[in-house]
Amino acid sequence: MNEQVTKQMISQAAVSLFNTKGFSGTSVREISKKANVNVSLISYYFNGKQGLLEHLMESFFEAYVRILENAYELSETLSARKSIQNMMLDLLYFQQENSRLARFVHRETTIDSTLTREIMAIYLRREKFYWQKVFEKGFHTGEFKKSDLDLTIIQLKGMLTMPFSNPQYVEEIFHLSPSEPYFIKKYSMYVIRWLDERFLINREQERKVEVG
Amino acid sequence: MNEQVTKQMISQAAVSLFNTKGFSGTSVREISKKANVNVSLISYYFNGKQGLLEHLMESFFEAYVRILENAYELSETLSARKSIQNMMLDLLYFQQENSRLARFVHRETTIDSTLTREIMAIYLRREKFYWQKVFEKGFHTGEFKKSDLDLTIIQLKGMLTMPFSNPQYVEEIFHLSPSEPYFIKKYSMYVIRWLDERFLINREQERKVEVG
Repeated sequence: MNEQVTKQMISQAAVSLFNTKGFSGTSVREISKKANVNVSLISYYFNGKQGLLEHLMESFFEAYVRILENAYELSETLSARKSIQNMMLDLLYFQQENSRLARFVHRETTIDSTLTREIMAIYLRREKFYWQKVFEKGFHTGEFKKSDLDLTIIQLKGMLTMPFSNPQYVEEIFHLSPSEPYFIKKYSMYVIRWLDERFLINREQERKVEVG
Repeated sequence: MNEQVTKQMISQAAVSLFNTKGFSGTSVREISKKANVNVSLISYYFNGKQGLLEHLMESFFEAYVRILENAYELSETLSARKSIQNMMLDLLYFQQENSRLARFVHRETTIDSTLTREIMAIYLRREKFYWQKVFEKGFHTGEFKKSDLDLTIIQLKGMLTMPFSNPQYVEEIFHLSPSEPYFIKKYSMYVIRWLDERFLINREQERKVEVG
């Protein structure tokens, strides 16, 4: 097995165990057993369980912010409304594709730790920056009405996170399955309508899109 | 020390440790040391760490749903809009008063465990029931326009949870402090405006309230 494959297998086994037994409730031995690799490889590749945690958190948020950044840059010539939709959709699909990892990292960022503070300072601050930039574009061009941006970004972040941090809640209480393809279609339409109600000045534009 | 006080001290010490080191990362010995009680009392009162976890989760959600229920029943003669505001405010204040415990239990419900499934089946289903009932009242009386209720409840639940499950995110990225008295005032006004935009048919009513 080459290095990439082994690291992938260790990461997947670890995330799956962390989601049922928690990070500290899972031993390195259990991870190696589930991944079917020698236990020494976890120290070798990740420098132990804490290193594995850091790797998982950083690689998730690195990819998350890059996706947001790319979607932002690619849609710079579009309307603010369309840019936000692209950014939102890319983040939803990314989390759906990496749903177990997403569930784990969203949980870990609610722990008061040095690693969480680093994730906030490095990645979540950048996330806020991109949302703010694209909303401000909408204010500037007169496409959006001015509104409390911080609370809107908190609400939007909550919407983008909830199905992947609490999939069991969404499934068991509402019978919606965040891992199904139809889910993102239905969910994103709801988020778009909410944003339109909140920001759009020209509601004609919105109605046309909904009918069309 | 009487039993109530001892149990309280153990619970508080445990929650504080769980929020920095995680549930499994905390030993019974550390809890007893921080609570300044003999370690055997944790087995005696809670039947060990797992029993303590169950006690914390159940007592939080028991109180949470009771508060929702009471607010619902007390406001049965009021408009749907006013009922929702009361329910929401009571839940926000309850979580603010029990912020450490709230942070911990919200995190634990993202773990795929038997306990989580029980919490969903017993408490979160009841929570959904009350929200649904009060929104349906608004549809029935013609106060609200019809709308996708499930996704609205998911969004509302996210709004009510976020500041207490992720206080560090809200503080470090947005410089808003969920533990401060002003926070609930500002935050609930935002949630009310969102719900008004989403549901109110007679927007005059909303404007009057905002001006008055």
